[in-house]
Amino acid sequence: MKTTYSVKLVLLLTLALNIVSPVPAQGPTPAVAELGQLNLMPMPATVELQPGRLAITDKFSVATKGYADDRLRTNIARMTRRLAGRTVTTLSLDLAAAESSATLVVQCERGGSSIPSLNEDESYSLEITDQQARLVASTVVGAMRGLETFLQLVQGDREGYYLPGVRIHDQPRFAWRGLLIDIGRHYQPPEVLKRNLDAMAAVKLNVFHWHLTEDQGFRVESKKFPKLHLLGSDGLYYTQDQVREIIAYATERGIRVMPEFDIPGHSTSWLVGYPELGSAPGSYKIERAAGIFEPALDPTRDQIYKFLDGFLGEMAALFPDAYMHIGGDENEGKQWDRNPQIQAFMKQKGIKDNHALQAYFNQQVLKILQKHGKKMIGWEEILHPDLPRDAVIHSWRGPASLAEAAKKGYNGILSAGYYIDLIYPASQHYVADPLPDGNAMTAEETKHVMGGEATMWGEWVSPETIDSRIWPRTAAIAERLWSPRNVTDIADMYRRLAVISHQLEELGLTHERNYPVLLRRLANSDHIGPLRTLASLVEPVKEYRRYQMRPQTMLSPLTGLVDAARPDSEAARQFAAMVEGLLSDAPRFQLYRSDIRDSFKIWRDAGIALDPMIERAPGLQEARPLAKNLADVSAAGLEAINYLSTGTAAPTQWRDLQLSKLDEAAKPKAALELVVVPSVRKLIIAAAEPRK
Amino acid sequence: MKTTYSVKLVLLLTLALNIVSPVPAQGPTPAVAELGQLNLMPMPATVELQPGRLAITDKFSVATKGYADDRLRTNIARMTRRLAGRTVTTLSLDLAAAESSATLVVQCERGGSSIPSLNEDESYSLEITDQQARLVASTVVGAMRGLETFLQLVQGDREGYYLPGVRIHDQPRFAWRGLLIDIGRHYQPPEVLKRNLDAMAAVKLNVFHWHLTEDQGFRVESKKFPKLHLLGSDGLYYTQDQVREIIAYATERGIRVMPEFDIPGHSTSWLVGYPELGSAPGSYKIERAAGIFEPALDPTRDQIYKFLDGFLGEMAALFPDAYMHIGGDENEGKQWDRNPQIQAFMKQKGIKDNHALQAYFNQQVLKILQKHGKKMIGWEEILHPDLPRDAVIHSWRGPASLAEAAKKGYNGILSAGYYIDLIYPASQHYVADPLPDGNAMTAEETKHVMGGEATMWGEWVSPETIDSRIWPRTAAIAERLWSPRNVTDIADMYRRLAVISHQLEELGLTHERNYPVLLRRLANSDHIGPLRTLASLVEPVKEYRRYQMRPQTMLSPLTGLVDAARPDSEAARQFAAMVEGLLSDAPRFQLYRSDIRDSFKIWRDAGIALDPMIERAPGLQEARPLAKNLADVSAAGLEAINYLSTGTAAPTQWRDLQLSKLDEAAKPKAALELVVVPSVRKLIIAAAEPRK
Repeated sequence: MKTTYSVKLVLLLTLALNIVSPVPAQGPTPAVAELGQLNLMPMPATVELQPGRLAITDKFSVATKGYADDRLRTNIARMTRRLAGRTVTTLSLDLAAAESSATLVVQCERGGSSIPSLNEDESYSLEITDQQARLVASTVVGAMRGLETFLQLVQGDREGYYLPGVRIHDQPRFAWRGLLIDIGRHYQPPEVLKRNLDAMAAVKLNVFHWHLTEDQGFRVESKKFPKLHLLGSDGLYYTQDQVREIIAYATERGIRVMPEFDIPGHSTSWLVGYPELGSAPGSYKIERAAGIFEPALDPTRDQIYKFLDGFLGEMAALFPDAYMHIGGDENEGKQWDRNPQIQAFMKQKGIKDNHALQAYFNQQVLKILQKHGKKMIGWEEILHPDLPRDAVIHSWRGPASLAEAAKKGYNGILSAGYYIDLIYPASQHYVADPLPDGNAMTAEETKHVMGGEATMWGEWVSPETIDSRIWPRTAAIAERLWSPRNVTDIADMYRRLAVISHQLEELGLTHERNYPVLLRRLANSDHIGPLRTLASLVEPVKEYRRYQMRPQTMLSPLTGLVDAARPDSEAARQFAAMVEGLLSDAPRFQLYRSDIRDSFKIWRDAGIALDPMIERAPGLQEARPLAKNLADVSAAGLEAINYLSTGTAAPTQWRDLQLSKLDEAAKPKAALELVVVPSVRKLIIAAAEPRK
Repeated sequence: MKTTYSVKLVLLLTLALNIVSPVPAQGPTPAVAELGQLNLMPMPATVELQPGRLAITDKFSVATKGYADDRLRTNIARMTRRLAGRTVTTLSLDLAAAESSATLVVQCERGGSSIPSLNEDESYSLEITDQQARLVASTVVGAMRGLETFLQLVQGDREGYYLPGVRIHDQPRFAWRGLLIDIGRHYQPPEVLKRNLDAMAAVKLNVFHWHLTEDQGFRVESKKFPKLHLLGSDGLYYTQDQVREIIAYATERGIRVMPEFDIPGHSTSWLVGYPELGSAPGSYKIERAAGIFEPALDPTRDQIYKFLDGFLGEMAALFPDAYMHIGGDENEGKQWDRNPQIQAFMKQKGIKDNHALQAYFNQQVLKILQKHGKKMIGWEEILHPDLPRDAVIHSWRGPASLAEAAKKGYNGILSAGYYIDLIYPASQHYVADPLPDGNAMTAEETKHVMGGEATMWGEWVSPETIDSRIWPRTAAIAERLWSPRNVTDIADMYRRLAVISHQLEELGLTHERNYPVLLRRLANSDHIGPLRTLASLVEPVKEYRRYQMRPQTMLSPLTGLVDAARPDSEAARQFAAMVEGLLSDAPRFQLYRSDIRDSFKIWRDAGIALDPMIERAPGLQEARPLAKNLADVSAAGLEAINYLSTGTAAPTQWRDLQLSKLDEAAKPKAALELVVVPSVRKLIIAAAEPRK
């Protein structure tokens, strides 16, 4: 580490002025850029600034040096097209004839694995001077990672687009940096996966964990057992051609594609076509609810393993990745308990409980995977004394299981802390570390921790909303898995996240652009101002409370206000920062006071304007109590601001009344939380505090 | 026609209040809805309102009666999903068990053509009462058209979602209602075509004219002549599997897919792989510029026709439509003039000029098409005394050629007037009629006019921007081609167009949602307010002036302000309406005065705020003079409003100075026009007029 990242930012000012772009609007360009002006995410291992700037003009060109192949050239062309789009400049897609005339020289040693691999060398270095940029990497995948950094460095000022002088040496902290997308609960068409693969590459993620089967859908074509996809998917599955296309797309971006076939539980959809595989007599129907369900493969019959040998063999040939994920989670074994044959089998074999029976199952599956040349990975439930040492543990309940697995000599990856479907803010995922402070692992044991994966479980996402559940938060997780462990400044993370977020749009991601679409449909109108104000201040309820509060099936439309609202409200975060500023300015209470007052007025007006909108749009009926809460909260807030302005403490009675209103406003409605309530609470408490 | 459509709308008020949704916010629901509240587009042949309303609840269900097949059931399921999304209600996708319990009964007589055909009966009737909706159609395609009408009738009020009581009998005025998409100049991936097919179905268009070859790209896989697509497309072409997928998608929506292979001109991309087909020696390169180019197939050699027999035969098997479009436009024959062999051939055969030579070529091509069971259609240049009577004329220069063709007994379709790439407003396309008033055709001749096609020529559209060039304006053209000729109220068209436009978003169309994406990329920031204000007041220059003013190649990025800005500025239209209102309120000049003043202030502030934005975003440099014009125009406007308020006429000198400023502001910059200038000009002239 040559530099420090604890760049001190005037966060509050930045937030209040709504500045996202960190480049100063005016004034001369500093000879050396400041680290706090760079919009890199994930932050490289080392960054050193140096004098100079490299102009991007219509003469821009790239030369390759050393090894070059089609994959490298394709990535250079794609980067050039993105650069052209961003700078509104026509750039030649032809490689430069000579190294000396090129703006960027990409120097590669070798191709690396043709199939992206866990052992790939992804390191690169990038040096930018007045004259030229030079990207050096061992492998083509390393060069790809550097090309993304190159693009993130592009800035603009009155003199034009440029890259600041910089010297970067970079490599990932963890080799396994993944995103799971569950297309079992809700199918996502190939173009959704493609744009997310583009986004993954942009933030240097390298494993697409394709959760292909669930109780609610079997989503991959099997030529051997066609009733799997034909009867288990409502017709919404990927053909093998499409699978190959997605794998090729990922490969071109240096991303592994690891399939998951979740067994023995989570397997209702398998049993629709093949009820004879189940542990209870059929028939079975595709599951439409969310939750944990009883159907499970019968681990006692040879027929099952013959079937799995056929099916997993077919999939092993289709998916080139070294690993195959067998799921193994949340099988409660209720069907097993009730099946006399299974019980007899357990007795006969001396299998003492369902966990042991599943271990038995896993051992058979492992043999099948080994036969087909695959390494096994499964959710942490598969951990069992009989589990062979080359299986990989996927932790979803917490880093403890990862540490336990490591102690026993298993490799593992972490997803606990990276469950983006729980709707927690990026800051919370950001602090989850696969090797947390104070972990009791030895140096040897930590080597077993290979990385982690964000998990996009699919209960409540449609092609229209899924991007907004994945991005931009997953970029913060990507940074956690790539960057040095001491890159932990949350304010700076959010500053960079905002920039990266709108850069992702150039790749077709829809997390921003679909937000007003959902609101317009709800309002049945182009004029969504007040609704947008409300939606910006609410977040879907956390964890899995949405399903309890607002039950739906997998066939329900995902077009409600809870679907339009997004995690990690930026407006609430900015408001909280202003309130902190105001309260830190005691006893004057002047800082941001008028901004806060203006916010309350906008909320108040929105609360009022929402009423007639809701009249016209019955789909918004459920938002009516939220509109009232917004009106109440803003009224309370305005009074608090008045007390703070006058210098007279508010009466205790007033405070208690307001706090009880806030308690009411804090209760979720329509599976949404008004997330500005805690900040308003602080104002009310401060307003009633005796002044010195 | 049982009712009249000249519903008198309080247009100005509607515009000024920014009401798009026409349902009243308050007050009791009238027993009978008013025609002016329906958001149908295209307007049906006859609409009769009747008492009652049919509630849409979670009990909604559909039954079929009479003929039903998979295509009908698929369309019912898709309609139900859209209805569920729009009403935020979980609806069952299963058909109702009994007709009596169904909310909607779909009664079909027969399947109709399995391949969509020009002769398809698309008529339907739809009756909605308190109890039930009943859709009756001869064919499944007719039922599809009715299902779209059904969805457009959905409204909401405080009592919930419902459909008004109505009795509709509907059939198209013209049988051929198309949209041409040119993917030769810029390739559009399959998902772009699919979402546009969805939109076409929503407005009852029934021909997707797939312009597959151009000088700039050969976009369809040929297994017989693979160098066509491999060398002629930069790798951006449709595989035959993809073509079949698109055709199946269109068929499911009752849309014909007619391919165009533009010959003998517009064929540079063919010659890259097969230079021996050209009229001049090669080699050839894919064309990167816009315009008319010399390369043309050599019509004198047997080899050419052998090749075309092979290629068009392959395509005839791939595309099931009865028609094949052979282009034939804009061949200036310069290569022919310079080729001694061709000249000798013409002499020998007595072919007097290039037009006659092309007619000779067309006759040979016609034989090939006939051999492969296809009817020929070509651009109007193919009209020639030797042209067989069963060829179809596609008019692009004006309805005169259509009339001329009809007189000679040819069938024809119109595209003149529907060139949406010229960036004219919807109102202009709306008045273009294939059978214009005062046409001199006999009744018999008019039967030869089969309809028309909007043409999305692809010089300046990317997957990101193309929807905004097609929609919503094409919905107005769709209405012209479907609805009775006396449906001509432009104000009512715009009212309905606004509603249809945001309904198209539910199908994935991006004409609205990508607008801020382009602005954010340009500004390199989420904070685009002032830029959005400017962009909303400008339109790309009309006709083909963009290329002259701002030359680019087909490899240039389409990410500039000219790409973000859209045709038919709604803001300018609303502003013009307010100015009309103010001027009609002479001598008080009070109506909308404060709205107009507020608009000017917003423009003035935007003009000022743009300066620092442009500093940070070099891609916006070209917008600097527009920002200045906006500031000038708003200053002039504010002064004019002041004069009008005070009752004192402005001095002539002031007026002349302001008008000269407006002359400057009216000049296009960055290939953009500030389209509010004419309205401001009216204010200035009025301000200087002597008061009575």
